[in-house]
Amino acid sequence: MRWWGWGEDGYDVNLPETASFLLESQLGVPAGQRRTPVTLEEVRLPEPRLPVRLRERLTGLLGADNVRDDREARVSHALGRSYPDLIRLRSGDGSSAPDLVVRPGSAEQVAAVLAACAAERAAVVPFGGGTSVVGGVEPVAEGFAGAVSLDLGRLNELGEIDKTSLTARLGAGMLGPEVERRLAEEGLTLGHFPQSFEYSTVGGWVATRSAGQASSGYGRIDELVEGLRFVAPAGEISLRGRPASAAGPELRELLVGSEGVLGVVCEATLRIRAAPQQRRYEGWSFRTFAEGCEALRVLAQADATPDVSRLSDEAETGLSFAVAPPAGRAERVVKRYLRMAGHERSCMAIIGFEGTEEDVERRRLRSAALLRGGGGLSLGRRPGEAWQQGRFAGPYLRDELLTRGVLVDTLETATSWSNLAALYEGVGAALRRALGSTSLVMCHVSHLYRSGASLYFTFFAGQGEDALGQWRTAKEAASQAIVEGGGTITHHHGVGRDHLPWMRAEVGEFGLELLRAAKERLDPAGVMNPGKLIPDRS
Amino acid sequence: MRWWGWGEDGYDVNLPETASFLLESQLGVPAGQRRTPVTLEEVRLPEPRLPVRLRERLTGLLGADNVRDDREARVSHALGRSYPDLIRLRSGDGSSAPDLVVRPGSAEQVAAVLAACAAERAAVVPFGGGTSVVGGVEPVAEGFAGAVSLDLGRLNELGEIDKTSLTARLGAGMLGPEVERRLAEEGLTLGHFPQSFEYSTVGGWVATRSAGQASSGYGRIDELVEGLRFVAPAGEISLRGRPASAAGPELRELLVGSEGVLGVVCEATLRIRAAPQQRRYEGWSFRTFAEGCEALRVLAQADATPDVSRLSDEAETGLSFAVAPPAGRAERVVKRYLRMAGHERSCMAIIGFEGTEEDVERRRLRSAALLRGGGGLSLGRRPGEAWQQGRFAGPYLRDELLTRGVLVDTLETATSWSNLAALYEGVGAALRRALGSTSLVMCHVSHLYRSGASLYFTFFAGQGEDALGQWRTAKEAASQAIVEGGGTITHHHGVGRDHLPWMRAEVGEFGLELLRAAKERLDPAGVMNPGKLIPDRS
Repeated sequence: MRWWGWGEDGYDVNLPETASFLLESQLGVPAGQRRTPVTLEEVRLPEPRLPVRLRERLTGLLGADNVRDDREARVSHALGRSYPDLIRLRSGDGSSAPDLVVRPGSAEQVAAVLAACAAERAAVVPFGGGTSVVGGVEPVAEGFAGAVSLDLGRLNELGEIDKTSLTARLGAGMLGPEVERRLAEEGLTLGHFPQSFEYSTVGGWVATRSAGQASSGYGRIDELVEGLRFVAPAGEISLRGRPASAAGPELRELLVGSEGVLGVVCEATLRIRAAPQQRRYEGWSFRTFAEGCEALRVLAQADATPDVSRLSDEAETGLSFAVAPPAGRAERVVKRYLRMAGHERSCMAIIGFEGTEEDVERRRLRSAALLRGGGGLSLGRRPGEAWQQGRFAGPYLRDELLTRGVLVDTLETATSWSNLAALYEGVGAALRRALGSTSLVMCHVSHLYRSGASLYFTFFAGQGEDALGQWRTAKEAASQAIVEGGGTITHHHGVGRDHLPWMRAEVGEFGLELLRAAKERLDPAGVMNPGKLIPDRS
Repeated sequence: MRWWGWGEDGYDVNLPETASFLLESQLGVPAGQRRTPVTLEEVRLPEPRLPVRLRERLTGLLGADNVRDDREARVSHALGRSYPDLIRLRSGDGSSAPDLVVRPGSAEQVAAVLAACAAERAAVVPFGGGTSVVGGVEPVAEGFAGAVSLDLGRLNELGEIDKTSLTARLGAGMLGPEVERRLAEEGLTLGHFPQSFEYSTVGGWVATRSAGQASSGYGRIDELVEGLRFVAPAGEISLRGRPASAAGPELRELLVGSEGVLGVVCEATLRIRAAPQQRRYEGWSFRTFAEGCEALRVLAQADATPDVSRLSDEAETGLSFAVAPPAGRAERVVKRYLRMAGHERSCMAIIGFEGTEEDVERRRLRSAALLRGGGGLSLGRRPGEAWQQGRFAGPYLRDELLTRGVLVDTLETATSWSNLAALYEGVGAALRRALGSTSLVMCHVSHLYRSGASLYFTFFAGQGEDALGQWRTAKEAASQAIVEGGGTITHHHGVGRDHLPWMRAEVGEFGLELLRAAKERLDPAGVMNPGKLIPDRS
């Protein structure tokens, strides 16, 4: 991945003309403006300050090839891939770069690295694919003897696959495409497709309690973890796989989502499935967002949840129509059909099913009947196929928008069905207030549960002079609206550094004490990923 | 509930003649033998030893009506309802009786009781319905200034029901039938039916990570907890309801299953459902247990899991036929049909569906096709209805068997599908070895998951001279076989005192450290339910 953005160099997205027009007319972004990133050599890096003794010890443990402090290694482990991270990187701010990047080759080597760093009080920042959008991999090492980025890329072995029980043991460093490629060879799939799929890892998914685009069907990662090998400075926890248990508190759930703050996910045994014979994604239209939400609630509570269901609000639907390629004959027919059915300013949903042909057909027909009963209008497979093609495109597109001088970010939450409309209104209003009139705020429902759903907001504005300050104002306003409105501060992005201030609202002061107790036992020196997840005592 | 057994006085079960014959012929239990329990007055109780000051403080907090140390209160809170508990009670052993039984009326009163007891180092044993079969409610107060049983029966309020999000806030002390009665008034159900349903409570279910007979369909209690109000000596944790979150470790999962050792579940917001319009339970026959297991695996992995699915092995099937009422014409027809189909010594399964009529029919037909494809033979609704009628009968029957001088107990585990047959063989062999030839060991699969299933063993023998020692030998043999065979030490009974020695094998020494860290933070004085769940450091 290129150090200042998403994807590999040369993979650039061109915005359609209509998008350029929208940027100028709606966000006030000057048409010709281009803000390109600095070169790698121009990135300002702090002097490495790690004790020489520790560097030598780590080199002794891992070999010189796996201990790097060159410019490229440090810059590429300095930040994640959030909007503020990219703003900082593109402007040459490498102030958060680790002193050293190490690449252990086994769980035993991870343990040795943690011990060495704990002994010298050097901060350790576990690093999977580096795709965090909440500041989760940014070293925060004030008060420490430097920062070591623990790159888990070499823990990429596929362990045994149990085809009878449908589980697979996967190394933490395996990337999404590699997981799916290896499982596909056996006719299997994990089915975990976050937008970061191409560059995120098994360990990152588990450590951040990730949800993928199809997690309503395949299950969130926390529902897929059967067993776990977890290495902390004070010791190792191996939880053997088991389908369910009543043997006390579920420790697995304390380690899943621990974001490198308690220790390191080295290996996970995950629940897998037979690879789908068929994927069928369709578009549906609803007259209003509220009508669509109600239809999705009925689906979820009838145990008819599709594998993918995303309902865009009016703004998101409008934007996707606006930037679509010029309408051909087929699109004009669809538009006329929508107008006649009273769906002119409608909300679009993508409803997707995967599985055997028979399964897909059976489930699709049942959900279609319920969606029609809820006022939905089928738009056929075309919109679904278009969504599938673009499902990982967001981060690529973002690079181009940043070049054009656009503020663009996403945030997400979840709440009960009865609170969904109020939370949607509250967060949207907070973002619009914070960003001003030349902004665009849009939202979709992305994950369905029997008791509620998630809301995923995307927002755009012209970049201000103080791009980071402008972003922070919007982020704080939205986060405050979320916790005051009864939502969770994050449904699938994780906590990291950016959501830290809202963890007290999330679990209460005494809930934080419980997290601190775990932290102190697992990481007595407090070196694991400081400044993330668990706020200091107030 | 009567103090020495199950149900109310006068509710006695008569064994059929065939059962008496089996007891004599197979277990060597003399036909006329009757071992009746002592009277309440004959139970030997230790002198109360709680500091007077604490007793007065608790009386001041709760009122004299809610602070009892009479014989009936103490004996009825001395033990749970396991086989060894009943053996002890019936023989007049009240040595584990608490010094005091208190009944707080609110979460605030619970907090005040915990503070008072922590200050005096008196052990506190949370008590819901008292139905633990693993020694979970037995006071273990050596080294403490006495034991207080914290009866939560007065926390029995139904809080708000959210009919849109399908959640209900329930007081910890609500009993199963009360929960279902109140929800039924609104057309709703929780669907949680452990065999102890009539006498167990919301708080007990949550604290022990309970699974009910229909939990393959409605979800285990840990899957149903949306929010929680949890009071520990050091503070309170209120986790507001949310359908899902990525905000760090899931603290709820650390409190669910904490068995009173970390604190007290005072209130739970649980996920509920529309009450079923229809319940349809059917019998199925398989030629062998292995064939039946394989058919159930196919169901589970095809997402066609019934709400109830129990597959009895040859021994359990044989016993249920043997003690059934004398065969009428219909039964003789069925037997001939089974014989002709090669199912003479078969394994019987109960397959049940609940929901709307349309749902039940659709799911039933799909599962029936898969079961037939797996070698199953439908036996129609009669066996299903018989099972439904007797679903809560086990503990009543047990009282009569104890009177007859029979050792009878159950234990359970879960493992992956690929390990199921080996674990089944291993545990069965260990029990038969421990109990000797005049015993009967039988098993059923009771809960299905995509990755595995649970095994539920029932075993019988004639009571030896040293009934408790005889039981302990069998229990230890089975537990050892479970952990060595890769099973979890308990799938739904919990840990309590009886499974304590196997928790190290379950989560490892460092996993125990994590539990201890939570314990020390929530309960610094260590007064909460000592001697349960978390073994001392080795």
